[in-house]
Amino acid sequence: MKIGFIGLGNMGAPMALNLLKAGHALRVFDLDAAALRTLADAGASVADSPKDAANDAERVITMLPAAAHVRRVLTGGDGVLAGLAPGAIVIDCSTIDPATVKAMAEAAEARGNRFVDAPVSGGTGGAAAGTLTFMVGAAQPLFDTIEPLLRAMGSNVVRCGEVSTGQVAKICNNLILGITMAGVSEAMALGEALGIDPKVLGGIVSHSTGRCWSADTYNPFPGVIETAPASRGYTGGFGTDLMLKDLGLATDAARSVRQPAYLGALAQQLYQALSANGGGGLDFSSVIGLYRAKSRTAG
Amino acid sequence: MKIGFIGLGNMGAPMALNLLKAGHALRVFDLDAAALRTLADAGASVADSPKDAANDAERVITMLPAAAHVRRVLTGGDGVLAGLAPGAIVIDCSTIDPATVKAMAEAAEARGNRFVDAPVSGGTGGAAAGTLTFMVGAAQPLFDTIEPLLRAMGSNVVRCGEVSTGQVAKICNNLILGITMAGVSEAMALGEALGIDPKVLGGIVSHSTGRCWSADTYNPFPGVIETAPASRGYTGGFGTDLMLKDLGLATDAARSVRQPAYLGALAQQLYQALSANGGGGLDFSSVIGLYRAKSRTAG
Amino acid sequence: MKIGFIGLGNMGAPMALNLLKAGHALRVFDLDAAALRTLADAGASVADSPKDAANDAERVITMLPAAAHVRRVLTGGDGVLAGLAPGAIVIDCSTIDPATVKAMAEAAEARGNRFVDAPVSGGTGGAAAGTLTFMVGAAQPLFDTIEPLLRAMGSNVVRCGEVSTGQVAKICNNLILGITMAGVSEAMALGEALGIDPKVLGGIVSHSTGRCWSADTYNPFPGVIETAPASRGYTGGFGTDLMLKDLGLATDAARSVRQPAYLGALAQQLYQALSANGGGGLDFSSVIGLYRAKSRTAG
Amino acid sequence: MKIGFIGLGNMGAPMALNLLKAGHALRVFDLDAAALRTLADAGASVADSPKDAANDAERVITMLPAAAHVRRVLTGGDGVLAGLAPGAIVIDCSTIDPATVKAMAEAAEARGNRFVDAPVSGGTGGAAAGTLTFMVGAAQPLFDTIEPLLRAMGSNVVRCGEVSTGQVAKICNNLILGITMAGVSEAMALGEALGIDPKVLGGIVSHSTGRCWSADTYNPFPGVIETAPASRGYTGGFGTDLMLKDLGLATDAARSVRQPAYLGALAQQLYQALSANGGGGLDFSSVIGLYRAKSRTAG
Repeated sequence: MKIGFIGLGNMGAPMALNLLKAGHALRVFDLDAAALRTLADAGASVADSPKDAANDAERVITMLPAAAHVRRVLTGGDGVLAGLAPGAIVIDCSTIDPATVKAMAEAAEARGNRFVDAPVSGGTGGAAAGTLTFMVGAAQPLFDTIEPLLRAMGSNVVRCGEVSTGQVAKICNNLILGITMAGVSEAMALGEALGIDPKVLGGIVSHSTGRCWSADTYNPFPGVIETAPASRGYTGGFGTDLMLKDLGLATDAARSVRQPAYLGALAQQLYQALSANGGGGLDFSSVIGLYRAKSRTAG
Repeated sequence: MKIGFIGLGNMGAPMALNLLKAGHALRVFDLDAAALRTLADAGASVADSPKDAANDAERVITMLPAAAHVRRVLTGGDGVLAGLAPGAIVIDCSTIDPATVKAMAEAAEARGNRFVDAPVSGGTGGAAAGTLTFMVGAAQPLFDTIEPLLRAMGSNVVRCGEVSTGQVAKICNNLILGITMAGVSEAMALGEALGIDPKVLGGIVSHSTGRCWSADTYNPFPGVIETAPASRGYTGGFGTDLMLKDLGLATDAARSVRQPAYLGALAQQLYQALSANGGGGLDFSSVIGLYRAKSRTAG
Repeated sequence: MKIGFIGLGNMGAPMALNLLKAGHALRVFDLDAAALRTLADAGASVADSPKDAANDAERVITMLPAAAHVRRVLTGGDGVLAGLAPGAIVIDCSTIDPATVKAMAEAAEARGNRFVDAPVSGGTGGAAAGTLTFMVGAAQPLFDTIEPLLRAMGSNVVRCGEVSTGQVAKICNNLILGITMAGVSEAMALGEALGIDPKVLGGIVSHSTGRCWSADTYNPFPGVIETAPASRGYTGGFGTDLMLKDLGLATDAARSVRQPAYLGALAQQLYQALSANGGGGLDFSSVIGLYRAKSRTAG
Repeated sequence: MKIGFIGLGNMGAPMALNLLKAGHALRVFDLDAAALRTLADAGASVADSPKDAANDAERVITMLPAAAHVRRVLTGGDGVLAGLAPGAIVIDCSTIDPATVKAMAEAAEARGNRFVDAPVSGGTGGAAAGTLTFMVGAAQPLFDTIEPLLRAMGSNVVRCGEVSTGQVAKICNNLILGITMAGVSEAMALGEALGIDPKVLGGIVSHSTGRCWSADTYNPFPGVIETAPASRGYTGGFGTDLMLKDLGLATDAARSVRQPAYLGALAQQLYQALSANGGGGLDFSSVIGLYRAKSRTAG
């Protein structure tokens, strides 16, 4: 299948490589020349604009940092929609706000094209291994049409409902994640201060009603889970600034529909405090540092 | 074994019955005559004071509402410690603060007895079925001594460390529980407002990084989990006022060691608002009512 | 002086009328024909675009709902900057984010013009009476140049520093206001529940360290201050949705510089909950309704 | 008048000295021998128990750290109530919870005595100068009876209502104070990060709707108010741990009546975080340190 692929960053590049491996013909675009070269070496052809990447494509996949980029890449003068053939489908894998998704879907439809939101989870590891989860917002027939293509990049492709619900699912999940990680940090640090062995506490919580991914798989206390970022200096996981982006999307979405997001908004401030003091690049589970008294972390 | 059992409420009564079934000789005390009669009918002898229940006992088990009761039942003029034979062991299954546990342990030791904290989880259902989890704070040899007795009432007996760590484990677990339930409520209500099917959202979260007991087993949105209280009008679960008691223990403990409990303290206020408007007796997952706009819950 | 005036809403219209009264020649623009007619009747000439209003003007004043409007009105194809004569000054009285202010200032300077942020406080009453406070971000000489013009509309014109600091001052002030109003509500409702006469409590706080505008001038408890919106059903003051706009600007600005805004973000959620249940149009002091138990407010 | 005075700490000692100066006969008690000696040198007689201090007294004044002390000093075997003559009045100037006040009032009445809560504000400076404010909970005739005595120690004696309302007034005021100080800190630090001169911002807020004691008299930003603790290294004011005690009373009282205290509970955690890292003895306005990024405070 002829595919335009725009956005070859840490996530986009390995995703594009997996499509090449699956035998698709790719025409790629990015502002970074090195990224383009890597893909060209692997067999992709290089476009000189989003519009150019969209020409002749049956599908265009975008993987971009934020809503403003998606908007520009799609609707700009040299953008995807300006080059797209009738009937072609745009699949946006970026994590952006549901309102922009709806606006892009309308813009695409106005030109006889379709737009699908398909944000991912699984991180750069999942992108490389082709084991991402895609949360897809699309009518059922459209979902059926694009599912096989997404399977070349992920092991789990879930339909969440009509257009924009892929983003809603991702935002709501990560809202819970941001809260539970801070909550588990709060409880682990409290337990430490009250004299329980953090490893014992982590084990009990993981088999009780406090059980959650942030406790049993990604525990923020060093040494509780050997494979978690906490056990390797909070490196190599999901960065605090990325969590901040997602919590920002969640609280902005809550604001747009006048929903209170009490805990999410508070968690957001905690990660913001972390980032303010230089921790934006560390794994977000380092939020436990706000809870552990200096005398204890030094010990 | 000769056992004194004090506190025959919703939890204590079925626990005591399970000990009788296991063949132990029980001498029971409670202020409620009806509760005493039930146990007497099942074969227990009735004491007229905590001291009387402790006489001749090898073990005394207490299951009381709060720290003040434990203090009075143990150290009052007619209390357990006044009647206890040397070498007998007090096992307190109440949920109370770690500082009171330490004070009681010292009082017991001063008289040649020992005191173990062994709070439970599993609710009245687990108490009746004998499938409770016991979180035990005791030195290893003491733990080994009492474990078989606890197994007559529970299926899971966990040593958490030295005395008081049983309470620490329970408090920390329920702190996480109170936070995650409010967090999942926040996200489910947001998802609803943004147009995703709550059942779909519940399913996605349960298989992603937002995964937690409050989402995959006890989801607060009606109809997502058929067996959860949310699907039967928030009846018959873990009451909001009980969650408030546990969050109160957690934030008080945090205060005592000068730990911030940002999310726990905020969650506590949410459950307090719920209780203020008459919801103290409903299951704590009804906290989602604070998030769903009236227009939506009415629909 | 020849003045272009764009944005004739509840605030802009009375401000423009005061300029006419002061003898200035106004050329006005708005999308609302009725608003234009009112100003025309009072002696203004009517423009058919922002650009048209800016032609020949020595000063252009804008009073618009949000940053997006300011951006469009200034930099759009038919916008102010396209029509402005060299040396003319744009004074924006809208409340918007500091980043947009800086961008507009750069765009103006690139064309040989200058841009000043001058958000106001004082409400529609102050706009009509000509007693507004202007918080101005401008270099000293530029401030000196425009101050007399602003004095025709306000009684208090304060220089806050360089460009954008007018917005910073307004945002920071209203952040405090949103927090103190919710805090005073929390304390007044607590006092009521604990049995003190709210009027007595209001009086004590107003002469003690809890003293603040939200307690001594605009107390949220009905009957404590006779002239406050609380004493007339929360009508006719500063609407909850306007407070939400300002708290949104504050928490967005905090996010942009990675500052935690713990209390502001939480207060924002409280006003959001209020708005979700239909209170967006009531005075923001009605936030006390979230604190007073239904049984008490009904009595 | 014959007065028993119990509790000669930083506040109690200067208050007692002012009573001596006013010509009253004092019989004092404290556990600290040095404090007793100071008062004896000034003309007081020394008692060897609270009961002894109460013998022959027409009034007994207590100034103690917390509710537990008040309870012990009044109702203990060697306590005030055991020694008091019929008709004598106990005036408790400690800051404690309203529930204990009511219990003490009942205990006093049962013995033919009366109990008044009269917590103070004004700090050690006001205690020495005799310019304290007394917030009094007492029926009007009883208030009229004791007011002259309190005037020997304070310049402002306010009747708040029936017994316990003195504590309610103090708790509610300090709840607002704890919140506004954190809120002003949040806004001042945000303003700094956004580039406004903190002195200018402080001035604007102090003349606008954000106006409050925490901004215009006790501003937490160094240098804004020359006489504030912030301008002398946060020394010599109202300690963080004292604010923590008062916020603890406020949130405990809120819990007892099932009132949510959203902002108060969150502010409490902020001061707790401050105290956890060694700031418990500094003035509570040092909470701004949680908001100012390290890079900025270092500069």
